[in-house]
Amino acid sequence: MTKEFDNLIKEKDLVLIYLDEKRQFLAQAVSGLRMSSDLGDLDLSDIVKKPYGFVGKTHLGKDFYCLKPSTADLMMKARRTTTIVYPKDLGYLMLETAIGPGSRVIEIGTGSGALTMVLAKFVAPDGIVYSYERREDFIENARKNIERVGYAQNVEFTCVDVALKGFNQTDIDAIFIDVPEPWAIVPKAAVALKGGHHLVSWSPNVEQVKRTIEALEACSFKRTKVKEIIEREMLVRLQGVRPRERGITHTAYLIRAQKIIATT
Amino acid sequence: MTKEFDNLIKEKDLVLIYLDEKRQFLAQAVSGLRMSSDLGDLDLSDIVKKPYGFVGKTHLGKDFYCLKPSTADLMMKARRTTTIVYPKDLGYLMLETAIGPGSRVIEIGTGSGALTMVLAKFVAPDGIVYSYERREDFIENARKNIERVGYAQNVEFTCVDVALKGFNQTDIDAIFIDVPEPWAIVPKAAVALKGGHHLVSWSPNVEQVKRTIEALEACSFKRTKVKEIIEREMLVRLQGVRPRERGITHTAYLIRAQKIIATT
Amino acid sequence: MTKEFDNLIKEKDLVLIYLDEKRQFLAQAVSGLRMSSDLGDLDLSDIVKKPYGFVGKTHLGKDFYCLKPSTADLMMKARRTTTIVYPKDLGYLMLETAIGPGSRVIEIGTGSGALTMVLAKFVAPDGIVYSYERREDFIENARKNIERVGYAQNVEFTCVDVALKGFNQTDIDAIFIDVPEPWAIVPKAAVALKGGHHLVSWSPNVEQVKRTIEALEACSFKRTKVKEIIEREMLVRLQGVRPRERGITHTAYLIRAQKIIATT
Amino acid sequence: MTKEFDNLIKEKDLVLIYLDEKRQFLAQAVSGLRMSSDLGDLDLSDIVKKPYGFVGKTHLGKDFYCLKPSTADLMMKARRTTTIVYPKDLGYLMLETAIGPGSRVIEIGTGSGALTMVLAKFVAPDGIVYSYERREDFIENARKNIERVGYAQNVEFTCVDVALKGFNQTDIDAIFIDVPEPWAIVPKAAVALKGGHHLVSWSPNVEQVKRTIEALEACSFKRTKVKEIIEREMLVRLQGVRPRERGITHTAYLIRAQKIIATT
Repeated sequence: MTKEFDNLIKEKDLVLIYLDEKRQFLAQAVSGLRMSSDLGDLDLSDIVKKPYGFVGKTHLGKDFYCLKPSTADLMMKARRTTTIVYPKDLGYLMLETAIGPGSRVIEIGTGSGALTMVLAKFVAPDGIVYSYERREDFIENARKNIERVGYAQNVEFTCVDVALKGFNQTDIDAIFIDVPEPWAIVPKAAVALKGGHHLVSWSPNVEQVKRTIEALEACSFKRTKVKEIIEREMLVRLQGVRPRERGITHTAYLIRAQKIIATT
Repeated sequence: MTKEFDNLIKEKDLVLIYLDEKRQFLAQAVSGLRMSSDLGDLDLSDIVKKPYGFVGKTHLGKDFYCLKPSTADLMMKARRTTTIVYPKDLGYLMLETAIGPGSRVIEIGTGSGALTMVLAKFVAPDGIVYSYERREDFIENARKNIERVGYAQNVEFTCVDVALKGFNQTDIDAIFIDVPEPWAIVPKAAVALKGGHHLVSWSPNVEQVKRTIEALEACSFKRTKVKEIIEREMLVRLQGVRPRERGITHTAYLIRAQKIIATT
Repeated sequence: MTKEFDNLIKEKDLVLIYLDEKRQFLAQAVSGLRMSSDLGDLDLSDIVKKPYGFVGKTHLGKDFYCLKPSTADLMMKARRTTTIVYPKDLGYLMLETAIGPGSRVIEIGTGSGALTMVLAKFVAPDGIVYSYERREDFIENARKNIERVGYAQNVEFTCVDVALKGFNQTDIDAIFIDVPEPWAIVPKAAVALKGGHHLVSWSPNVEQVKRTIEALEACSFKRTKVKEIIEREMLVRLQGVRPRERGITHTAYLIRAQKIIATT
Repeated sequence: MTKEFDNLIKEKDLVLIYLDEKRQFLAQAVSGLRMSSDLGDLDLSDIVKKPYGFVGKTHLGKDFYCLKPSTADLMMKARRTTTIVYPKDLGYLMLETAIGPGSRVIEIGTGSGALTMVLAKFVAPDGIVYSYERREDFIENARKNIERVGYAQNVEFTCVDVALKGFNQTDIDAIFIDVPEPWAIVPKAAVALKGGHHLVSWSPNVEQVKRTIEALEACSFKRTKVKEIIEREMLVRLQGVRPRERGITHTAYLIRAQKIIATT
C-alpha cells in the first residue's frame, strides 16, 4: 500500500534528467556517479531518495528536473545497434493486435531490444516475449537494455535463423516482424500464430510491403491493412503557433493481417 | 496450461465477423442469435466452440471469417455517445506516459469509454483506471462497453465536475484529459499526479492547445510537447500501390507534460 | 488604357457566383438566362455590366457575390470527361519547367482540357500548346472548355496514338504527360523535346512511377525527381482554428526529368 | 523562326550545371570564368554555343550536364537576403488568382525577389509587377536577381512603408502579401485591388493567419480559404521505393480571399 504510492528515486532507478529540449538524458541513479553537460555537472548521489519531479541545480546553477521516463523514452534512449521502431509506429501497431497482460508474443528480430522492452512491459506480469535474432551480439546488447529497464523475466531470447528453422512455440497471441525480408518469415509465423490472431510487420520500402503481402495471401492471412503513421510536432511559443519546420518524414509502412485456419 | 493455449470461441466472446472491408462486425457469440448482411445471414450458435480463425459460410454461401478483435477494434466498435480518441492517437499517447500493468491512472472525461477500456486493459491485472465524467448517461453507456470487453474490475467511475471538485485520489501515475476545456482541469490534475509523471491531453483546436499549455506552465509542468499523429492508408492492389485517395485528415493535437514538484 | 482598368462583367464573361462554401458556380454571363439554387434564383441579365465584386440578391433575398474566377476555378469547374490534374499539382509542376509566355509546349493526353487551358493561358499571347489525345470525343469536350475560357488560339489538338505515331513537333520547351502508361510515350518525348529541357509526368500508382523512371533512364534523361504535393485545409472559425477533418489524401506522384543530348 | 527553335547556350545565359544531386549550380555562362567543385573544375567558355542538354567533363573526368533552369530553380538559387516563398506554395497561390500574361500585380514585400521574378515572368510580355519593400538594400539585391533572369522591364520597385502610405496604383489584378504583419496591409490592398479579384498572403504562424483573416473580414473580403501545401519526396532506387526520411515539414499557411465592392 505505502509502497504503491512511493514516488522516491531509488538506487539504480532510471531517471530522465531534463535541463532543456537539447539536454535530456536517461540516467541510472547510481550513487557516486557524476553526469556532466555544458550547463554544469550534477552528482547522481544527490537525486537518490529524492522524489520524482525534484528540481536540482548543476554546479553552474542551472535547474535540472528529475522526471519519470516514459515508455517512449526507454525506447528512444536504448543503446542502439540497429535502427529502431518509433513509438508513433509501435503505439499504433500494439493496438492493432489483441495483446495485453498475460499474452505470449513473438518478435523477430530483436535488434536493439527497443520493441522487446515495450512488449515485455505490456504482457507483464505473466506474459512472455519470445524474441528471435540471428546475431548473438545484438541479443547481448538487447539483453542489457531489457535488464536495465527491468523486464528480463518476461523475455526469452533465441539466436536462430527463423526463416530456416521456424519458431519453438505455437499458439502465439501476436507476432511482430521487424526484419528486411518479412516474407521469408511469414510461413513460419503462420504455424506459430493462433487462428484469427494478428501478425504485424513494418518495412521502409514499397517493394518489401508488396512481397510481404503476397506471402501473407499465400498463407491465407486475411484483413490485411497497410498504414503509415506520420508524426508532426507543433511549436507553441510566445511568438506564435506553427508546425516544426524540419523533421522526420518517413520511417516505415506498417502491415497488419490476421490468420485464417482451415477447418474440417 | 491447456487453458492458456485454448483458442476456441466461447459463449459471449467478442468476435470480429469479417466478410470484406465494408462488412465487418464486432459481435458477441451468443447462441441463438442471428446476424444478417446483404451477403447473407449467419447463426452465431454455429461459431461457438469453433476456433478463432474459423471460416464459415452465410446462408447465401459467402465466406465469413471469425477473427480475434484487436484492441483498436474494441475501441472503434464501442457504442458511442461522443467522438472518441483514435487508436493512432491513443497508441502514441500511451507510450508517452510510463503506465503499464499495475498503474493507477485517471481519465477525464469518460465519454464513450473507448479510452477507458484500453487503459483498463493495459493496467490489468492489478492496476485501476479512475474515470471521471459529468454526465451519468455517458457513464452508463461506458460501463456497458467496459463490461462487454471484460475489464469492469479495473475501472472505477465517478460522476462529478472535476473542474470544481477535483479528484478523490493522489499519487496517480498518469492523467489522460479528454474534455473541451482541459485548462480547467490542470490545477486539479497537478494535485492528483505523482511528481515527475505524465499528463496527456488532446484537443482539436489550436486555441485549446494554447490555453492548456498556459495552464500547464502556470502549474509548473515541464517538458511539454505537442504533436499531431497522421494516419495514411496505403492500398496494395494488383493494379498498383498508392495511398488511399480520401480519408481522415485531422483528429486532435496531442499534448504531453510532466509535473515538477517544489522541494525544501 | 481605359480598357485595361475596365472591371465590368461583359456579356459571355465567366463569373464565379458565390453564395457560400457549398453554393458556388462558374457561370457565363448570358443575358436572359437564370440560375437557381435552394437559396433563390438570380437573373444573369442583372449582372452584365456590373463590376466584378458586385453583391446581388437572389429572389429570396440571399446575397450572392460576382467574383473573378481564379485559374484554379477554371480548372476545377471544367466539364469533365476524365479525372483532372489538381491545381496543387499543376502549380508545382509548371514551376518545375521553364515555360512562360511564348513557350511551345506538348501535353498528352488532353483529357478534359483542364491542364490544356492553364498551359495555354501561361504561354499566351505567342506560345502554343500542342495537345495530343487518342479519343476524339475527349478532344471535342476539351475544345469547348478551352473556347469557353478564351484560349482557343493558343491550342492545337491532334487525335492520334502518340505511343505509335510520335509527335509532329520538335524543339519543344516542355512536355506534360498525363496518361496511364507514360513509359510508352517517353521515347517519343525524347525526340520532340529540346535538349536540357523538362518532361513532367504524373501517375497515381508507385508501379507507374517506377516504369516511367526506367524509361526515362533508358532515354538518357537526368535529374529525375519524384514528389507528392499534399494540400491541407485549415479552418479558421470563431470557435477555433484546426485542420479540416476529412479530405483528399492522394492524387498523384509527380515526376520531373531533363533531357540530355549526345554531342560529338 | 530559326531563333524560336534555337537551343544554344548564349553568353550570359543562366545554366543549371548538374553533376549530381549534391552538386548543382546555377551559373551564368560567361566566357573566361571557371567553376570548381570537389569533382573537378570546368571552364564556362566551353559551354557557350553548346546546346542545352550538353554533357561535358570536368578536368577530373566527371560528367556534368548543362540543363535549362526551371522557374523553381531560378527562385531557389536566387541570392537571398530573406527566407523565400517556396515553389510548392507559389505554384499553388498563382493558380488561386486569375493572373496571366498582361496582368498588373502588386507584391509586398520584395524580399529577395524570388516571388517577383516568377510573377514578372508570368505577366510578361505586357504586364507589370509593382513590388513594394521598406528596405532599400533588399530592393537592390532583388533588382540584381531580376536583372539576372531577364525580367527587369516587367518590374517596378517602390521603397515605402505600405502600411502607412498605401499603394500608388488602383485596379490591380492580384495582390501578393509576404510580410510579417499582413493585417496592416489589408486595408490598403482593399483600395488598390479590382473588385472580385484576389488577395493572397502567407505566414508561418497560426496567429498571423487569424489576424489577417480578421482584417480581411473587416474589409469585406469574401471566399477566404487557408491551406497548407506539403511537399513529400519519393526516392525511387534499385533497392526500393520509399518517401525521403527527413525533410521540410512546414513553410507557411496560405490565405486567399476575394474583394467585394459596395454598389449603389
